[in-house]
Amino acid sequence: MVSSLRLPALTSLFSPSFTRRSTVSLRRRLHLRPPLAAGFSAQSAASSPTETEDRVESKKSGRVQDRGSTDRVITPRSQDFNAWYLDVIANAELADYGPVRGTMVIRPYGYAMWEAIQDYLNVKFKETGHSNMYFPQFIPYSFIEKEASHVEGFSPELALVTIGGGKELEEKLVVRPTSETIVNHMFTQWIHSYRDLPLMINQWANVTRWEMRTKPFVRTLEFLWQEGHTAHATLEEAEKEALQMIDVYTKFAYEQAAIPVIAGRKSKVETFAGADKTYTIEAMMADRKALQAGTSHNLGQNFSRAFGTQFTDENGLRQHVWQTSWAISTRFVGGIIMTHGDDAGLMLPPRIAPVQVVIVPIWKKVDEKTGVLDAASSVAETLKNAGLKVKLDDTDQRTPGWKFNFWEMKGVPLRIEIGPRDVSSGSVVISRRDIPGKQGKVFGISMEPSILEAYVKDRLDEIQSSLLQRAISFRDSNIVDVSSYEELKEAISLGKWARGPWSASDADELRIKEETGATIRCFPFEQPQGTKTCLMTGKHADEVAIFAKSY
Amino acid sequence: MVSSLRLPALTSLFSPSFTRRSTVSLRRRLHLRPPLAAGFSAQSAASSPTETEDRVESKKSGRVQDRGSTDRVITPRSQDFNAWYLDVIANAELADYGPVRGTMVIRPYGYAMWEAIQDYLNVKFKETGHSNMYFPQFIPYSFIEKEASHVEGFSPELALVTIGGGKELEEKLVVRPTSETIVNHMFTQWIHSYRDLPLMINQWANVTRWEMRTKPFVRTLEFLWQEGHTAHATLEEAEKEALQMIDVYTKFAYEQAAIPVIAGRKSKVETFAGADKTYTIEAMMADRKALQAGTSHNLGQNFSRAFGTQFTDENGLRQHVWQTSWAISTRFVGGIIMTHGDDAGLMLPPRIAPVQVVIVPIWKKVDEKTGVLDAASSVAETLKNAGLKVKLDDTDQRTPGWKFNFWEMKGVPLRIEIGPRDVSSGSVVISRRDIPGKQGKVFGISMEPSILEAYVKDRLDEIQSSLLQRAISFRDSNIVDVSSYEELKEAISLGKWARGPWSASDADELRIKEETGATIRCFPFEQPQGTKTCLMTGKHADEVAIFAKSY
Repeated sequence: MVSSLRLPALTSLFSPSFTRRSTVSLRRRLHLRPPLAAGFSAQSAASSPTETEDRVESKKSGRVQDRGSTDRVITPRSQDFNAWYLDVIANAELADYGPVRGTMVIRPYGYAMWEAIQDYLNVKFKETGHSNMYFPQFIPYSFIEKEASHVEGFSPELALVTIGGGKELEEKLVVRPTSETIVNHMFTQWIHSYRDLPLMINQWANVTRWEMRTKPFVRTLEFLWQEGHTAHATLEEAEKEALQMIDVYTKFAYEQAAIPVIAGRKSKVETFAGADKTYTIEAMMADRKALQAGTSHNLGQNFSRAFGTQFTDENGLRQHVWQTSWAISTRFVGGIIMTHGDDAGLMLPPRIAPVQVVIVPIWKKVDEKTGVLDAASSVAETLKNAGLKVKLDDTDQRTPGWKFNFWEMKGVPLRIEIGPRDVSSGSVVISRRDIPGKQGKVFGISMEPSILEAYVKDRLDEIQSSLLQRAISFRDSNIVDVSSYEELKEAISLGKWARGPWSASDADELRIKEETGATIRCFPFEQPQGTKTCLMTGKHADEVAIFAKSY
Repeated sequence: MVSSLRLPALTSLFSPSFTRRSTVSLRRRLHLRPPLAAGFSAQSAASSPTETEDRVESKKSGRVQDRGSTDRVITPRSQDFNAWYLDVIANAELADYGPVRGTMVIRPYGYAMWEAIQDYLNVKFKETGHSNMYFPQFIPYSFIEKEASHVEGFSPELALVTIGGGKELEEKLVVRPTSETIVNHMFTQWIHSYRDLPLMINQWANVTRWEMRTKPFVRTLEFLWQEGHTAHATLEEAEKEALQMIDVYTKFAYEQAAIPVIAGRKSKVETFAGADKTYTIEAMMADRKALQAGTSHNLGQNFSRAFGTQFTDENGLRQHVWQTSWAISTRFVGGIIMTHGDDAGLMLPPRIAPVQVVIVPIWKKVDEKTGVLDAASSVAETLKNAGLKVKLDDTDQRTPGWKFNFWEMKGVPLRIEIGPRDVSSGSVVISRRDIPGKQGKVFGISMEPSILEAYVKDRLDEIQSSLLQRAISFRDSNIVDVSSYEELKEAISLGKWARGPWSASDADELRIKEETGATIRCFPFEQPQGTKTCLMTGKHADEVAIFAKSY
């Protein structure tokens, strides 16, 4: 059946590094399967009959055998970071490949992480005065051409609709790679006077960029994001807005995702196609590569001039509006995986975790089962009523040991174990995902609702801040202050980030990229005191920049 | 500037009926503008300089003059229903035309209605065991061809991407018109055994159908929707699911949108391309045309056979899964407008309204202003804390009379007026949108928080059920029981719905469509008792069908 799908050959489906990886992880997966079917795209279907027979047979013997933790399906992180990343995504069922090269299916567990991001940001956007709306995704090709640097930046990445309703279209349509052009086309019709300003909107949408090198969540042909767009009467207001939104993103990263991003300004070379200034939050992944995790642009009057978006000011004069745009995408999910995960799999900050507490009931004899399950259900109910996201894993199909590994791999922050002895003593055992083994395990926590609820909430708060502290230490121990190009090269060659004073040319910046693979990630808002000398030219520099290899 | 946008000529931008209407409504709009810029697409930009000067001049004289209610911008509903609909959408700022023919920009007020729909349904979907996820929107063309009736139904409406990243693609990509094919492609990889079933997911997404006759919300080239997709081990389970979801939609329509839909089964002719059975909710608009407001399909094994989506059952045998899909779209927003609106504009059921209560402070002398505004703010705070959606319209730019008209036109269920005398007496005046004039106005409601909150909540509940009751009466008085084709023709020619026993052929059904313009909307679940004789053939019939003209 699968061959009748007339799929393009697998080698053309995925970019080179993908094909190799997913084949490897498929081979590995044949040894251990999570309860729900996992699997990368087309390959796994071929193996399904075998797998299924296997599982059915296991059922007959009453319980699937626990194969123990030696039979790991996830490549150790230290061994091959990219392989580890793809294995985690496959095994934790975060995403799968779509049939079109570079596209991704976001599975429920991964989508729930995106929903946690949406829920937080959506509230913040509204609190800061933005309204949600929706713009069409088809943009006349001529729109893209109107802003010179915008077309230069985006035209290599466009997907074009040329046929609609069976007919060749007179004008090609761009599937939105971003919406500044169509937003300005509409703003031009809605904005008349200063009283219509500021106009502050946001949309949650899919966007398409024809990327050649793709990687799940981090860079896909189609992705989900929010894009904010605002128009203001003055440059100062637009600048304030652009800074406000990068600040919203920064707070989100620290407080929700436990990712200690460095916020700052992009260099001219790295500024968004069509912006005057781009602000960014840069996150250090566990392999020490940088991930641009969110951006906020001061667009100046570039789009308003291209689209004639004007207003009449208080003196009756016609002026072009000042604009911003800002976005965070499903890439952020990749950032969370790559910041906190370890050899055992995902490790999720409690405020992002789709499941915050998993409850594993443990029994051996049949007469123990009812008591244990009753207690487990009641504990689950208590915690759910306290507003926590709880999963009670009461299946007969797997041993407790298998479940421990599985939910660890899924990154659930807290595990509660309840056995017959715990039922007698009215207590539970609680294990932390972020502290492995016995050290993270506490016995004898009372089942009494108010005590248990308070204990669990305290631990979740502790894990949330512990993950952040750990990431801060990691980040800070991997940023090196440099004062010469030699020092910069050494830091980069050690896989670290280099921070040093910079006032050299764009050409020098590009030379560094060519020679080291590192780019200026940003001029951080937080600057060291004192006079600075450019690491490249020896001349005075106003600011330090951060250089790193990046995704 | 506008001419430099190189837009297609206006006549090609909109379907014939649109062009006429939007030009007319533009002309009308020049007389009265809402505080925020309204306007249909390209046309309004041309008029903006004049408009703006006008407003700036008014500002100089201290306050914009109230032009009174004689200067209506909305075509009376009874005079021209379609014109009324488009005028309401423009003036209430629900949507605007996008630059590409048939596309729509959903503006914040219209999008907030969609968010109210989403918020309710999203919870219900999760309560009934579905998880959200996301499938790519690009589908290989060959997928669409795999299910015979599916390709027949959808191929005339497809938008095709033929160029990506600057290169002609080897295989054309379909921009999803619906996702059954790609969903099955993935289900085939995820489903192995009966233990993987049921698989129940949903996605919130945009879809594209190259419609030739478009109308904002009701039928647009791109629209937003949710699409549920489930796979089950048995036909019975799939049937139960399909019925469960049409029931969720029915409850939503009645309880939230106050639309008394008729739920039932589609005739074979009207069944979804690829389904065995389609269930539908049919709503009667105020012009008595039917709107198909949501559908739920029992897909049988049509897609699982086409895509080889199989599972191993408890006996170790390979079986094709049984599937459903179900959807509600932004079309529903159009249904709300056309069910409840009147000559004054929108009338929104409180549970859908983006603003449930508008507060209009009234003062004449400067020394009254502070007291009135303080009281108004405090009332707003009280109601917001009670969880209500409140707007305090305290601008100096408009008179109270203008504000009354404006918020009535926006369909806000309750208006609270607060003047100096109300401040002295510690009370407010409350007017209902659904009862015009003095009859809907009550004086002397205490500002005391607990009293006011209870009063407002009670009135909102009353309005909610009053709108539903009104719509039920309207619906029931416009459905005629018929027992012959003659009677059916007469009912349809009077603009009514006809309900009569039906067991005739598909050919007869198509003949009715040709001769009367009416189609079978559904065989309603609620059937009259007694033996039935087919209105067309005189033979025995099991069921009555409902015939109506539709959108």
